[in-house]
Amino acid sequence: VIVILSSCFRQGILERLDAGEIVIGDGGFVFALEKRGYVKAGPWTPEATVEHPEAVRQLHREFLRAGSNVLQTFTFYASEDKLENRGNYVAEKISCQKVNEAACDIAREVANEGDALVAGGVSQTPSYLSCKDKTEVKAVFRKQLDVFMKKNVDFLIAEYFEHVEEAVWAVEVLKESGKPVAATMCIGPEGDMHGVSPGQCAVQLVKAGASIVGVNCHFDPETSLETVKLMKEGLQASKLKAHLMSQPLAFHTPDCGKQGFIDLPEFPFGLEPRIVTRWDVQKYARKAYDLGIRFIGGCCGFEPYHIRAIAEELAPERGFLPEASEKHGSWGDNLSMHTKPWVRARARKEYWENLKPASGRPYCPSMSKPDGWGVTKGARELMQQKEATSEQQLKELFQKQKF
Amino acid sequence: VIVILSSCFRQGILERLDAGEIVIGDGGFVFALEKRGYVKAGPWTPEATVEHPEAVRQLHREFLRAGSNVLQTFTFYASEDKLENRGNYVAEKISCQKVNEAACDIAREVANEGDALVAGGVSQTPSYLSCKDKTEVKAVFRKQLDVFMKKNVDFLIAEYFEHVEEAVWAVEVLKESGKPVAATMCIGPEGDMHGVSPGQCAVQLVKAGASIVGVNCHFDPETSLETVKLMKEGLQASKLKAHLMSQPLAFHTPDCGKQGFIDLPEFPFGLEPRIVTRWDVQKYARKAYDLGIRFIGGCCGFEPYHIRAIAEELAPERGFLPEASEKHGSWGDNLSMHTKPWVRARARKEYWENLKPASGRPYCPSMSKPDGWGVTKGARELMQQKEATSEQQLKELFQKQKF
Amino acid sequence: VIVILSSCFRQGILERLDAGEIVIGDGGFVFALEKRGYVKAGPWTPEATVEHPEAVRQLHREFLRAGSNVLQTFTFYASEDKLENRGNYVAEKISCQKVNEAACDIAREVANEGDALVAGGVSQTPSYLSCKDKTEVKAVFRKQLDVFMKKNVDFLIAEYFEHVEEAVWAVEVLKESGKPVAATMCIGPEGDMHGVSPGQCAVQLVKAGASIVGVNCHFDPETSLETVKLMKEGLQASKLKAHLMSQPLAFHTPDCGKQGFIDLPEFPFGLEPRIVTRWDVQKYARKAYDLGIRFIGGCCGFEPYHIRAIAEELAPERGFLPEASEKHGSWGDNLSMHTKPWVRARARKEYWENLKPASGRPYCPSMSKPDGWGVTKGARELMQQKEATSEQQLKELFQKQKF
Amino acid sequence: VIVILSSCFRQGILERLDAGEIVIGDGGFVFALEKRGYVKAGPWTPEATVEHPEAVRQLHREFLRAGSNVLQTFTFYASEDKLENRGNYVAEKISCQKVNEAACDIAREVANEGDALVAGGVSQTPSYLSCKDKTEVKAVFRKQLDVFMKKNVDFLIAEYFEHVEEAVWAVEVLKESGKPVAATMCIGPEGDMHGVSPGQCAVQLVKAGASIVGVNCHFDPETSLETVKLMKEGLQASKLKAHLMSQPLAFHTPDCGKQGFIDLPEFPFGLEPRIVTRWDVQKYARKAYDLGIRFIGGCCGFEPYHIRAIAEELAPERGFLPEASEKHGSWGDNLSMHTKPWVRARARKEYWENLKPASGRPYCPSMSKPDGWGVTKGARELMQQKEATSEQQLKELFQKQKF
Repeated sequence: VIVILSSCFRQGILERLDAGEIVIGDGGFVFALEKRGYVKAGPWTPEATVEHPEAVRQLHREFLRAGSNVLQTFTFYASEDKLENRGNYVAEKISCQKVNEAACDIAREVANEGDALVAGGVSQTPSYLSCKDKTEVKAVFRKQLDVFMKKNVDFLIAEYFEHVEEAVWAVEVLKESGKPVAATMCIGPEGDMHGVSPGQCAVQLVKAGASIVGVNCHFDPETSLETVKLMKEGLQASKLKAHLMSQPLAFHTPDCGKQGFIDLPEFPFGLEPRIVTRWDVQKYARKAYDLGIRFIGGCCGFEPYHIRAIAEELAPERGFLPEASEKHGSWGDNLSMHTKPWVRARARKEYWENLKPASGRPYCPSMSKPDGWGVTKGARELMQQKEATSEQQLKELFQKQKF
Repeated sequence: VIVILSSCFRQGILERLDAGEIVIGDGGFVFALEKRGYVKAGPWTPEATVEHPEAVRQLHREFLRAGSNVLQTFTFYASEDKLENRGNYVAEKISCQKVNEAACDIAREVANEGDALVAGGVSQTPSYLSCKDKTEVKAVFRKQLDVFMKKNVDFLIAEYFEHVEEAVWAVEVLKESGKPVAATMCIGPEGDMHGVSPGQCAVQLVKAGASIVGVNCHFDPETSLETVKLMKEGLQASKLKAHLMSQPLAFHTPDCGKQGFIDLPEFPFGLEPRIVTRWDVQKYARKAYDLGIRFIGGCCGFEPYHIRAIAEELAPERGFLPEASEKHGSWGDNLSMHTKPWVRARARKEYWENLKPASGRPYCPSMSKPDGWGVTKGARELMQQKEATSEQQLKELFQKQKF
Repeated sequence: VIVILSSCFRQGILERLDAGEIVIGDGGFVFALEKRGYVKAGPWTPEATVEHPEAVRQLHREFLRAGSNVLQTFTFYASEDKLENRGNYVAEKISCQKVNEAACDIAREVANEGDALVAGGVSQTPSYLSCKDKTEVKAVFRKQLDVFMKKNVDFLIAEYFEHVEEAVWAVEVLKESGKPVAATMCIGPEGDMHGVSPGQCAVQLVKAGASIVGVNCHFDPETSLETVKLMKEGLQASKLKAHLMSQPLAFHTPDCGKQGFIDLPEFPFGLEPRIVTRWDVQKYARKAYDLGIRFIGGCCGFEPYHIRAIAEELAPERGFLPEASEKHGSWGDNLSMHTKPWVRARARKEYWENLKPASGRPYCPSMSKPDGWGVTKGARELMQQKEATSEQQLKELFQKQKF
Repeated sequence: VIVILSSCFRQGILERLDAGEIVIGDGGFVFALEKRGYVKAGPWTPEATVEHPEAVRQLHREFLRAGSNVLQTFTFYASEDKLENRGNYVAEKISCQKVNEAACDIAREVANEGDALVAGGVSQTPSYLSCKDKTEVKAVFRKQLDVFMKKNVDFLIAEYFEHVEEAVWAVEVLKESGKPVAATMCIGPEGDMHGVSPGQCAVQLVKAGASIVGVNCHFDPETSLETVKLMKEGLQASKLKAHLMSQPLAFHTPDCGKQGFIDLPEFPFGLEPRIVTRWDVQKYARKAYDLGIRFIGGCCGFEPYHIRAIAEELAPERGFLPEASEKHGSWGDNLSMHTKPWVRARARKEYWENLKPASGRPYCPSMSKPDGWGVTKGARELMQQKEATSEQQLKELFQKQKF
């Protein structure tokens, strides 16, 4: 009963959302390309747009095929101050402008292969963290915006901000362009690093000019939806209107604190057991939809098959499946012809919906004790032992200096 | 002290192994491309070589960059009987010959970008499982071999056989070509499905003409090495000589039975928590080397970063790092410049070597109860409850009919 | 530096608490005697006081020896309506009066062997649950009180109430005696079954005449302390004064809902893996003390060695160790002469304080999904899958009827 | 259909076993009395028989009531060399003779209350471990035997031996009495500490005069039954006949090595999560029976309710239930009148038989890494990381010296 539509018109992001359409975002570039060998963990900078454009292009293409309606330029941490800061990791120095331009070109090339918009993205800067003033920080964003305008992206996203103050500055700069602006913070239900609640963050971002607000990164789907819910309530209380957006991690993080998954001991090289399954993602997509979120995507850890799971879960509402579903059956039904009968017996929704997957690691705990001083209430309740660790001492020192 | 060599000469597989070189294999195509949206789980056939060559090419390229010295043609389950058998899954009928030819062309194109050999591969057939006779089964292999000869692959691999009888037939066919032949079975320490021990399997394969023997798929690195060890002992007892090879899963499977991971309840859509980390792979590579294995690669679940981990672990012995290590530090040392000091404190071998990663899934068990009637001793000892399940009844019925 | 005092004076409960002394309660009789073969799970009634007084006496003696300053009469669920209600479980009909009298006699006999007070206890009644009115419910409590007065107990405890309304009635009855009254509810941080918060419960109980308020049963030490903290805050907000008391479970229950451990699937015959260690109890005792609680004991699951752990943790503040410490070293130091050196190496506080004990059950989850409709926020955040179960349907039906 | 028989005749142990009767042993005294406050972990000596006879008597009584047909004198580690060796732990010096005499008197007093035999027990000695010769070691056993003869116990048990050589010496001494002798070793399937297999151990013990052989302590029920099975096979191969006996731990220990639970990091103060449930015990009892074992009891961790579970599981074969079953329903059926309907729904065998109990400890692993150099194959297969620890170094040193 569901047919694959080849939808070819291209409407703007706000026309789509205003019309009640579901817009599917893309997944996490830095984590996916780290595993493919093109991004270095630690700096996490996107010089691959210049060094290995074919690898970036292929990943965009896979997300498009999986159902993404928005291709974000691979410009995460591509601000000039960041690239310089971490320049020593990059084999040869590549200019900020080149990285951003190449990112726009690649995204546009692939977007033209389907029904997708290109969004230029900026993220938090070392300048803000080292206490540079508003003028200097805004200048950093403006440099990236210049490239986005020259390349004529469809809209703009300010994403991955831990401090709403800096996010507001970013929105103000992006708003100068006249294009629609979305803004997402990498925060949990406890709010930003200065203690501003999610509701207040949303209010400030909308007042600064964002038409779409939400969260990305740092927390798992469950927690991220809780945060967006608080944003929604904050906007309602202030009688403000905006579209909602969520792009969470594809890692389970019930045990993490205020700083999110960066404080988990497994970050970033031991997160495998936390990777969400496609079925987890279907539950996330349904829950996001029920909450009123209409821009639904993913961040670190989201691979193409995770994005496809969003598109498949919401296919009844949208009326079509993504291209990549030609290689996927709904809830495992492609197992119905397996040679082994007990594998065939898994070709049903109830099986996968209820499966509690084991780790095959008998000596590992199910939950970690996060690093970091801002442990969530849920985790705190569960923690039975509090040890003073040497890392803790490091942190206290650090905290005293300034964050 | 370790430098990146751009090694460009291309010697044959046996010259390399005879000279004591370490040869690094590639990873798992069907699982990686399933997640990227190009292969359908269930049939697991490689029509993507024709439908989406750019996706197959990119994956080959990532493995090459990660350190692979052998690119296997993406011809898994590409025998004519299998493709027909599962033809209804493929959007449009694509001939066996086209799939195999395209696979050879893509592999050669990428191999030429570096120091890699192309290996043409065949795997177990539906014909054997449905009791076709030796002549018919051999004819199926011969059809694929014709393409490999026409495309002039460097050597041949018979892989993923559950019955040594069929593997021997495959080796006999491949041996007609005059090219070197490697043979790997998808078995564990308990041997093949007819009860032939790993040692006996190795003996039969070498007697049939294989110069390299070992295992691939179905079991985790730990278990696979145990199986290769038994093969080695079998050969020694028979005073036979052959090179050893291992290409295990990148999933932890201590709890699985004779049939391997197919019987785990998480197969194939809930295996995420079992994915091995890069550090697990380094331990595997070292252990394989210590055991005398010199052709070391991976199978299902092995992504490019896993292959890179083999190359990095054995860099001291080989004298060089793979290209992709320009985006990776040894044992996390690229974290040494992270902005957060407690993340910086993870930039050391001891940290990652000893980490026991959590799953973030408090309600999930660490071990599953496998399906299947051949549970290993290790798992059996651990199983405290044995329940008659409906799946079990299915299996018994099936077993009575014939396997 | 710590010496064993043979303290022999006997001051009243309020004199002790007003003087700032720490009073140590006893442990859980119904669970301990169920395991010893004298109480039936399900009815949980105390006919053993008549049937097997030697078993009840021995348990009192062990708690006294472990450090208890209060021996509660074993009169849990010994109200007339309960004993009748569950009479069919008891081999021969034993009158309510006999059970209560024997309980007082045994407790007094053992209390006289050391420095302990006897507390007569009442708990929630079937009459209240079946909607009997205030007069009828109070009459039930008064019948037990008559025995307590005749036997001249030292003070009175109204414990294990899920509804503050009934607890208030109990306190009002007990208060008629002129003796000091303590009152504990079996609730968690979400409050009583009618939604009255812990703070409000405490306020109502103190206004009704209780001098000591707190919680017992249903939740683990961690959660119970959180509830008492809310009670303390409620009293402060209302400018009321009372002593605080806690008698939690000796089972870890981070995953349970509003109804507490009764809704856990392991209740009551599979709770073993949740039993707290002596080290867990020491942490609880310290935390309770730091919170200002001075009447510190346990409920179901608390065995004599758990009570000893409270007394040992607070020995520096109290100036003496309990008698049973002659058979126990501080933090494992009695292992220092073990024959095996690696066991000797465990004779230190750091070892036991930081140990995370394994279950030796590889197929079991670390957390359960509780039955019951009132799941706590902490657990809810952790639950990734919500399934409609047949038990759930039972519950919904039940809930509609009336609770 | 099952009725409670008050069986009063008293036949000897061999008459019972020869007639095919099931004989139920008792549980673990040192662990139970440690938790009750009368035994000190570390020395584990039984001076409580003199210091607190009422506590020892009550525990005997609970086991009798739970179904035990054999009451072992509480003379574990009551050899003269041991008591002296550990004398500094005992408040006042109590003579070996007094401890053994009191133990006999208490056991006989309680045995006379029901249908039970008294067994005098000896266990391994410090003299053997410190390389004293055969004559000296035998003299130690003979001192205890003198008391057992004077007090006229019904039969004798040599239990808890890690070296079959010493066990044989003990059997030879006990055999001088003319009374039946049982002998159990605290070994697993890998055999004794000198590498003698379980089968060979059994053969040597029977040849030395034991009429009943088996294992006690150190391993969980599952593993212990595997060991007894090997003993049985050893006897069959040697065409020897003997009755079989098992008294395992009540702790799950699938992860432990050759030395058993002493090498687990939780030993002895953090074993709680490993405690077996009553349902685990029922499975053990059935399995033991099916294996041909007819003397079925428990060791450390076995509480009265665990012994009752043996008696309940085998009630159909025996024709009667133990006294303590008046306070227990079969497979939870006493929950059928619980006030909450979802608890009532647990009053069925399927529920408890299949329950996988959670630990409520989200940060704890399901399996531990044992100390000790003799890790079992099952555990070894599961261990993914092998770290050199400081304890390991201790052990190596120790091992070189001599064990």
